[in-house]
Amino acid sequence: MITVWAPVGVGEVDEGADLVALLLAALAEAGRHLQDGDVVAVTSKVVSKAEGRARASTREAELPGQTLRVVARRGPTTIVRNLLGLTMAAAGIDASNVAAGTVLLLPEDPDASARRIRTGLRERAGVNVGVVVTDTAGRAWRDGQTDLAIGAAGLTVLQSFAGQTDAHGNPLVVTAPAVADEIASAAELSQGKLGSRPFAVLSGRADLVLPPGEDGPGARTLVRPEGADLFGYGAREAVVRALAGRPGDRAPFGAPASAEELAEAISTVTGAAPRAEGGALLVTAGDLPVLRALAFAFGWTMEVESGGHAHMRPPTP
Amino acid sequence: MITVWAPVGVGEVDEGADLVALLLAALAEAGRHLQDGDVVAVTSKVVSKAEGRARASTREAELPGQTLRVVARRGPTTIVRNLLGLTMAAAGIDASNVAAGTVLLLPEDPDASARRIRTGLRERAGVNVGVVVTDTAGRAWRDGQTDLAIGAAGLTVLQSFAGQTDAHGNPLVVTAPAVADEIASAAELSQGKLGSRPFAVLSGRADLVLPPGEDGPGARTLVRPEGADLFGYGAREAVVRALAGRPGDRAPFGAPASAEELAEAISTVTGAAPRAEGGALLVTAGDLPVLRALAFAFGWTMEVESGGHAHMRPPTP
Repeated sequence: MITVWAPVGVGEVDEGADLVALLLAALAEAGRHLQDGDVVAVTSKVVSKAEGRARASTREAELPGQTLRVVARRGPTTIVRNLLGLTMAAAGIDASNVAAGTVLLLPEDPDASARRIRTGLRERAGVNVGVVVTDTAGRAWRDGQTDLAIGAAGLTVLQSFAGQTDAHGNPLVVTAPAVADEIASAAELSQGKLGSRPFAVLSGRADLVLPPGEDGPGARTLVRPEGADLFGYGAREAVVRALAGRPGDRAPFGAPASAEELAEAISTVTGAAPRAEGGALLVTAGDLPVLRALAFAFGWTMEVESGGHAHMRPPTP
Repeated sequence: MITVWAPVGVGEVDEGADLVALLLAALAEAGRHLQDGDVVAVTSKVVSKAEGRARASTREAELPGQTLRVVARRGPTTIVRNLLGLTMAAAGIDASNVAAGTVLLLPEDPDASARRIRTGLRERAGVNVGVVVTDTAGRAWRDGQTDLAIGAAGLTVLQSFAGQTDAHGNPLVVTAPAVADEIASAAELSQGKLGSRPFAVLSGRADLVLPPGEDGPGARTLVRPEGADLFGYGAREAVVRALAGRPGDRAPFGAPASAEELAEAISTVTGAAPRAEGGALLVTAGDLPVLRALAFAFGWTMEVESGGHAHMRPPTP
């Protein structure tokens, strides 16, 4: 049995607020106690407020400073990879449930925020709990948003079944539920979106809570590193970046492709098969700027030979 | 307070199995009852098994038949938009917790499956519950998987706050938690991945359960329609599709861009600003196949004028 409970009546959180004290007070008022093995979810909104991340500014003005790079843009929507590595609309800058005329930046280091709360609860309430700092994010292919864990401490964030087999002896192909994100989503179900329930306590998965003194890898490890996902750019942005071919835009396309992958792409576009020469590819058909864009997106280098042919090579390690 | 509970000992589910009877038996054995307003989560795995979706086959052999189109491919990973519109690795074909030598296709219509279970529970246990059919999926930018709702009945799947304001009078910008997906994630936390807990019962969000006789929009409505997301292709796939320029590959890039968006893209790639002519764009610099790829990705048409310039127009409605 899993239970999730979110105390009401926490009240407004100001800069410098002691979140541990606020949580313990809300629990005491409800006649409840934390238990070893509970997981405490805290919205990034109150973490940011307590850490002084409010700015008398607008989303538009703050966006560049929170952006590592633009992933996709369409109409009023800008999806970026932000300073935390999170791919989010408007970099996760928050303009709801904040004082009028202000916006709220995400915590500077949400894993550190989670660690401080975990330590505070250990010191002041004598309990060993996991902590997640949650935020709300859209998804690439689905409508609506879910909460996910942008910070975590004392918690297994990814539960690995790699190497285990099922009752039929098949390897477990889905090997790693992102339990920290699932906990954040369960917390949102009990917190709602009206802002008066910044905390939630989840009980029943003590197996995910690490021993005292171990903070674990943090939620940062759930973020795929730059170039490790297949969706580093939106579809249109990818086309523009490949055709523009600026060296700094290469990484989001990922690690260099295999010769087979690049050859298939060239043949799809030009209709002609490139010739393999050792580890390189000789391409005798196709528009050179087009071939250059393909080489760029697939992480290869391209030189034009005297006969006007393209010679593509994987990058030298 | 939200509670999630997953009965153990349901046992193997075979083709033709009566899932409603299995769930009610598991509840009875544990001395529990469903209440009006509960939400029942059922894994797609047992729904598929009961509905006879096992195939003596392999993922590779079944993949083409489950695929609407390929979204991205890298190494052994193929991410597709499947027949249900879901963007998933291997189309969501399941090879774990199935008999050796077989794979399991997703239910043909998981919303209909959810409706049948909801109706069955109403008829046989006299309760009005919401039902979600859950499946496990990866995410574009995060490691690990979470469970989401691929079928739903009698449930608000998206909770809209559009038009509401917070305590400070700001419009609620994040307007629609995908609560059906959050319920699926909460269910996974209580079910785990070892296959012996195909059901979960979530209590405490009766506000999301629709009145008897109303099945609601279903989980299909959480899927962004073709072209409505910005990630219809992986980054490399987008480059190949734009450069290949096949008419059938256009839709995943989305609705036609504005003249400003396309002009900015052209200028990023060519370094020269196109000239606006009415609603059209005249482009006098740049390689023609490159310009053609841009027009294609941005949903415009392109003609080459006698002087070798490109004339781009938005598609006639």
